[in-house]
Amino acid sequence: MSETELPAHDIAESELDADDRLKPEFVSAVLDAVEADDVETVRALVEPLHPADLADLFELVPGEQRPALASAVADRLDGDVLAEMNDWVRDALIDALEPHQVANLAAELDTDDAVAIIEDLDETDQRAVLRALDPDDRAAIEEALSYPEESAGRLMQRELIAVPEHWSVGDVLDFLRGSESLATDFWEIFVVDPAHRPVGTCQLSWILRSPRSVSISDVMKREQTLIPVDMDQEEVALRFQKYALISAAVVDGSGRLVGVITVDDIVHIIQEEAGEDALLLSGAGEGDINQPVLERYRTRVRWLVANLFTALVASTIIALFEDTIARMVALATLMPIVAGVGGNAGTQTMAVTVRALATNQLTQSNTVRSILREIQVALMNGATIALLIGIGVSLVFGNPWLGVVIGAAMMTNILIAGLAGVLVPLTLERFGADPAVASSVFVTMTTDSMGFLAFLGLATVAGLTG
Amino acid sequence: MSETELPAHDIAESELDADDRLKPEFVSAVLDAVEADDVETVRALVEPLHPADLADLFELVPGEQRPALASAVADRLDGDVLAEMNDWVRDALIDALEPHQVANLAAELDTDDAVAIIEDLDETDQRAVLRALDPDDRAAIEEALSYPEESAGRLMQRELIAVPEHWSVGDVLDFLRGSESLATDFWEIFVVDPAHRPVGTCQLSWILRSPRSVSISDVMKREQTLIPVDMDQEEVALRFQKYALISAAVVDGSGRLVGVITVDDIVHIIQEEAGEDALLLSGAGEGDINQPVLERYRTRVRWLVANLFTALVASTIIALFEDTIARMVALATLMPIVAGVGGNAGTQTMAVTVRALATNQLTQSNTVRSILREIQVALMNGATIALLIGIGVSLVFGNPWLGVVIGAAMMTNILIAGLAGVLVPLTLERFGADPAVASSVFVTMTTDSMGFLAFLGLATVAGLTG
Repeated sequence: MSETELPAHDIAESELDADDRLKPEFVSAVLDAVEADDVETVRALVEPLHPADLADLFELVPGEQRPALASAVADRLDGDVLAEMNDWVRDALIDALEPHQVANLAAELDTDDAVAIIEDLDETDQRAVLRALDPDDRAAIEEALSYPEESAGRLMQRELIAVPEHWSVGDVLDFLRGSESLATDFWEIFVVDPAHRPVGTCQLSWILRSPRSVSISDVMKREQTLIPVDMDQEEVALRFQKYALISAAVVDGSGRLVGVITVDDIVHIIQEEAGEDALLLSGAGEGDINQPVLERYRTRVRWLVANLFTALVASTIIALFEDTIARMVALATLMPIVAGVGGNAGTQTMAVTVRALATNQLTQSNTVRSILREIQVALMNGATIALLIGIGVSLVFGNPWLGVVIGAAMMTNILIAGLAGVLVPLTLERFGADPAVASSVFVTMTTDSMGFLAFLGLATVAGLTG
Repeated sequence: MSETELPAHDIAESELDADDRLKPEFVSAVLDAVEADDVETVRALVEPLHPADLADLFELVPGEQRPALASAVADRLDGDVLAEMNDWVRDALIDALEPHQVANLAAELDTDDAVAIIEDLDETDQRAVLRALDPDDRAAIEEALSYPEESAGRLMQRELIAVPEHWSVGDVLDFLRGSESLATDFWEIFVVDPAHRPVGTCQLSWILRSPRSVSISDVMKREQTLIPVDMDQEEVALRFQKYALISAAVVDGSGRLVGVITVDDIVHIIQEEAGEDALLLSGAGEGDINQPVLERYRTRVRWLVANLFTALVASTIIALFEDTIARMVALATLMPIVAGVGGNAGTQTMAVTVRALATNQLTQSNTVRSILREIQVALMNGATIALLIGIGVSLVFGNPWLGVVIGAAMMTNILIAGLAGVLVPLTLERFGADPAVASSVFVTMTTDSMGFLAFLGLATVAGLTG
């Protein structure tokens, strides 16, 4: 630890390393106690942990130990811990619980966290849990479940503070102090008209800085960012980020205030959505290291099979030139270079394009310009690599024509790669597909096929033999 | 627009599409007016835009039009707009301004946003801007610049509310209402001891819900997450996310409260850090579509050259088997399949591993288990693909031995790919390198080389001819 580095939480100082990860010694100590059935020690060890760290602990112990750990720390295993837990780990744990246990957990959570736990259950279990909830909680959760998955309606909390326009700051203060049943954790209050439509938003700091006599409508900001209840969570995340929101009102089709989304619920989504592009582009789905092995196999093997078929396309192209290869076997040695470097160039452009689409940076207004600039970059990259490989091959093989052929093929393929890297994701987006999901397969197929075609084709035309 | 979809901002309704992107017609209208030198129309068009949308507008117009747009809307081009602008676009624009203009902009910003603008200037310009600032602002910004780049000290605001432990809620309210010079936008207040060390944090909603007579130390939460001033911004982002923080106190080496970081400054970082893995893995650096062409070329060509050299390794391996290929040219047709599908399998595992490392999900406690599970997945993937390609090749080429050879080679390469996909990022991380940056090159080199070696080696051993 450097001199100025301080413990994250004074209370959990000894369990965490400098990166807020649970220390391996701590995890082993817990595991040893779990295996020895020493419930007292397990509880004592786990006692100082923050709910987020307890959730991490579940992720870090082997799957077969998790039920034993769960029963040892059952009193700590509340909704806060479950909400912080990785989806795969949580689902497995929830599946091991009885419906009334799940209902007890769900009852103490905010609507959004309860929904996150219940929405993944199968329908029978979902009904059993809902039956075990008290009517108010049940109604709230059933309503949330009526909105599409991954929509604002599933994310929002219904606990919020809304006040009428004609109130003064003093009225608001008295209301907040006087009502026992109100939410205690909130960051903004909403000012609504008689039809319960939001007309303004008020940061708590503005209320605290204003005299009691001032009208709330003079303190609030009228210009507000409203979230439609059926908006996709990715769009919600982009909107929070773009307008630097802490919380935002959620409105239904008739513009009535129905809930609030807070940035801490969104941070997870921003992180997931931004990080998932790297996984999707690689063909690893939305999985993570907690995904069960069988599930992982199913996700990945599909893309490997797709990749196998696109590799067959490239293979067929090579087969067209078997005579050329038979005349000069060195061509077989060199051809993967043209395909491979082209593939890499295509992947670079594709990654940039997919990110730009995901972050709304690439729109109709700058598409043509972006394509033209990628062509420029491809020409410069192509010229550099073509020169390097062309001269190198000429010298090593003592065959300048072979150098010219591989240089020209490389130039061609890097240019095609640049175009494919922009056009494939753009086309997928235009047709409503997620460009992160399928771009790789098409771009690689293009760069492989064109690499082999350009190189072997030019070699045939040049009549190379050796 | 669906029935329940509502405009993001009532005031900017007509300029934005359903995804909060500026409509192309709007961008064209602005551009036409800029080209016609019609400043009045430009101003009228831009007037209703939110600062974040005005920043987007600058990104969407061609680079050569940006100075003209900037001078037309100079009065709107304040710090809020610059803070929302893409780094590349902003830097180019700032470079075009005089130091005193930059200083005027910086003076109206929070410390963190001012630092973001000034830190990218070259040293002469930085000094000129600092000289033009008033002494208080200059001191604050110079102190921020004294912290390492991408550290908490650069991100934090110095404007915060700190109160002594012995105050009551009433004292806090009177203090907030009475002092003109305090910050107006804050989400939590900090309770400090006489040495200005934070002892607790208090959400504003807790203050609003408590009677005046209650002591602030009974309202605050003692358990708090402190950020060391020299902590890397990526760690800060992970900590905000893990503990669902809205704001957090920043402390110096002696534990004194020196600033506050708010989640809206972190959301950008979470998004950037999570999204940048996809770019780094592809070898596109940290670039985006606003990166200038020359810069883009420099970033990418390095990785293409690295890729060229690793392709040469694979090429050298093929060259060892030229005799085998000469005896059966079909091998040259099939070998890219073994290398390509293996590469894809390696990339899948690598992407999952890199994400797990970036999100602190993979630690010493679960490394061995993760490797074992990846081996299981690799065995299942390998068996599936080996069977498919083995049977297919046997039938198409009427040569069962060729089928056995390609199947065995595929199995071997997918297994090696799975191991490389976990071990390469883990090893890079262990040596303190960013696994997202260089993993691809090593993994691809491994799967290419081993694919060719396994396939051509086995074919040689089996004595295949055709």
